[in-house]
Amino acid sequence: MSNTIHFKKIALIGIGLIGSSLARVIKRQNLADQIAIATRSAETLKRAKELALGDFYTTDNAEAVKDADLVMISVPVGASNEVAHEIANNLKTGAIISDVGSTKVSVIRQMQPELPTDVFFIPGHPIAGTEYSGPDAGFADLFVNRWCILTPLPNTNKQALEKLAAFWQACGSKVDQMNPEHHDLVLAMVSHLPHIIAFNIVGTASDLEKVTNSEVIAYSASGFRDFTRLAASDPTMWRDICLNNKDAILEMLGRFTEDLASLQRAIRWGDGDALFDLFTRTRAVRRGIIEAGQEVDAPDFGRQAVLQHAVPKTMNGSDLEKPKPD
Amino acid sequence: MSNTIHFKKIALIGIGLIGSSLARVIKRQNLADQIAIATRSAETLKRAKELALGDFYTTDNAEAVKDADLVMISVPVGASNEVAHEIANNLKTGAIISDVGSTKVSVIRQMQPELPTDVFFIPGHPIAGTEYSGPDAGFADLFVNRWCILTPLPNTNKQALEKLAAFWQACGSKVDQMNPEHHDLVLAMVSHLPHIIAFNIVGTASDLEKVTNSEVIAYSASGFRDFTRLAASDPTMWRDICLNNKDAILEMLGRFTEDLASLQRAIRWGDGDALFDLFTRTRAVRRGIIEAGQEVDAPDFGRQAVLQHAVPKTMNGSDLEKPKPD
Repeated sequence: MSNTIHFKKIALIGIGLIGSSLARVIKRQNLADQIAIATRSAETLKRAKELALGDFYTTDNAEAVKDADLVMISVPVGASNEVAHEIANNLKTGAIISDVGSTKVSVIRQMQPELPTDVFFIPGHPIAGTEYSGPDAGFADLFVNRWCILTPLPNTNKQALEKLAAFWQACGSKVDQMNPEHHDLVLAMVSHLPHIIAFNIVGTASDLEKVTNSEVIAYSASGFRDFTRLAASDPTMWRDICLNNKDAILEMLGRFTEDLASLQRAIRWGDGDALFDLFTRTRAVRRGIIEAGQEVDAPDFGRQAVLQHAVPKTMNGSDLEKPKPD
Repeated sequence: MSNTIHFKKIALIGIGLIGSSLARVIKRQNLADQIAIATRSAETLKRAKELALGDFYTTDNAEAVKDADLVMISVPVGASNEVAHEIANNLKTGAIISDVGSTKVSVIRQMQPELPTDVFFIPGHPIAGTEYSGPDAGFADLFVNRWCILTPLPNTNKQALEKLAAFWQACGSKVDQMNPEHHDLVLAMVSHLPHIIAFNIVGTASDLEKVTNSEVIAYSASGFRDFTRLAASDPTMWRDICLNNKDAILEMLGRFTEDLASLQRAIRWGDGDALFDLFTRTRAVRRGIIEAGQEVDAPDFGRQAVLQHAVPKTMNGSDLEKPKPD
C-alpha cells in the first residue's frame, strides 16, 4: 500500500503553485505529523495561513527547517543558493533536502556547496504545473499521474532516495531517475523551448501594426490561443530558468530555428510534398502522448466539456458585430 | 429572433469537420428543408449517410448543387478551383455560393472566374475547428460564440450578404467583415503561424538523438504537449494553406524569427531584465482572450475537469518506473 511513507515534520520552503499543492496532498494523504511553511513574502504567508495549508508559518527559512525530516524547496531556481545558505546551519542530521526546480545542474551547483555533509541532498523535479501561480493556485491532485524526475548525486544514500521516491509516489507521481545534465537537456526540449517559443509568438503578435490586438484576441481560437497558456506562466520563474539552463536551451533553440528555416524555404518555394510529409509525421506524436496518459483525448483539450454549461447569451442578432477597436 | 433565416435547399460540398458540423447545426436549427451532401470520397459519403447528416448524397458535386439556394464549400483550399469549375453550370440563378477556407485571396482567385454572374459568391471563414477531421469529428456547437469572417467582393448584393450573415448567426457565430487581403494577414498571424510553429517544434523534438521520443512523450506535460494539438491537424488542409497564403505567412514568419533571434541573444547574454519584461507583457494577452469569451478560464485549458472522472489506476507502487525505451 502507498501510505507506509510518513515524516514527522516536513518543511516547505516556498508556498506557490508547487509548494501549496504539496501542502495539500501531504495533508490529504497524511504524509506528515507537522507541516512547516516558510516564504519570503509576508503577504503570501498570510494567505497560506488563511488557506490553512500548514501547522507552522514563518518568513524565516532557517526557522522552518528545524527538526524537519524532509525539506522541500519550491522557489524560483535563481534563489536556490540563498535558500541553501540560509537553512544550512539549522538542518537536522539525516534530513532529506530536495527541491522542485526546473533546472538541475544549476541548482546543484548553487546548493551543494552550502549544505552540510550529514544531510541527504537529492534534487528533484515534478513535471507538473499550470499557468497559474501563488498559494491559491495549488491543488492536491496536481502530481497525479505526472512524472517526478529525481537527479541523485553520485553515492546518494539508497534508503533516502527510496524514501523520497515513495513520498512522490504517495503524492500520485510516477518517479524516474536521470543524471542532472540529461534532465536539463530533456527539459530544455519538452518544457523550456516550448515556453520560450510561446512567449515569443505572443510578443510578436502584440507588436504588429497592421493587425490590431483586438483582432488577435477575437480570432485567437484559430490556433494562437493555445500558445497563450504557456506565455501566461510566472515571469520570475521563467527568467530564472532561461538564465540557469542557458546551454541546453541554446542548443534546442538552434535546432528549432534550423528546422524552421528549412520549413520556411519549403513554403517559399511551394514544396507541397515536404510540407505534407512533416505535417503527417507530427500527428503521431500526439497520439503517443494521449496513449501514455499525459494528455486528454477530447478534442480541443476538452475545452468543449468545460464550456458546455456556459451557453452563449444569444444565438440570434441581426447586425454584423465587430471586435472592439484597440 | 434567430430562425427567420431558412433555405429550401442547402448543398454541402465536402463533409469533413466543418461540413459535417454545418450539416448538424442546419438540421438542429431547422435552417433548410433539404440538405444535399457531396464529397469526392465514396467512403466518406458512406459514413455521412450512416450518420444521417443529410437528405441526399452524391459523389458528384454538380449533381448536389442543383436547385440549391445556398452552396457551402468546405474543402481544402487547394481544391477550390476544381470545385468551382465542376459546379458552375448547375447553379441556380440567385443562389448564394460561399466557402469556409482559411485563406481568402487565393480562394477568390480560384473560384470567381469560374462562377456565372447570376449567382452571389460571398467568401467566408468560420474561425472554429478542432484537431480532428472527417464527418465523425463534427458537432452542432462548433460555431457557437466563434467569429465567422465574411470577405465580400466589391458590389456584393447587400441582401445576399445579410442572408449569409444571418445563416452564420443562426449557427451560433458572431459575424465580421473584412477585405480578403486583410483577412489573410490576420489569419497568418493568429492561425497559420501558430500551426507552422507547432508542426516545426514537434518535428524538432522527433528528430533529437540525445533525447528519446519516449522521454518527449513522458515529460510532455511540462509544456510540449500544448503544441501537439495544432500539430495533429489535417495535413492536406495545412499544406494547402501554406501554399495559398505564402506571402502573408512569410511576413509573419520573418517577424517571429527576428523576435526570436533577439530573445535568443537575451538568453545567451543573460539579460534577465529583457526576459522578465517580455514574459510579463505576454501574460496580459491571455487575460484579454479569456475576457473576450474565446478561451476557458480553467487552469490547463480545463484538462483537470475532463480528467476528474478518469482517476489513475494506482497511487502506490514501490519500484521506480521508467518510460519505455523507444
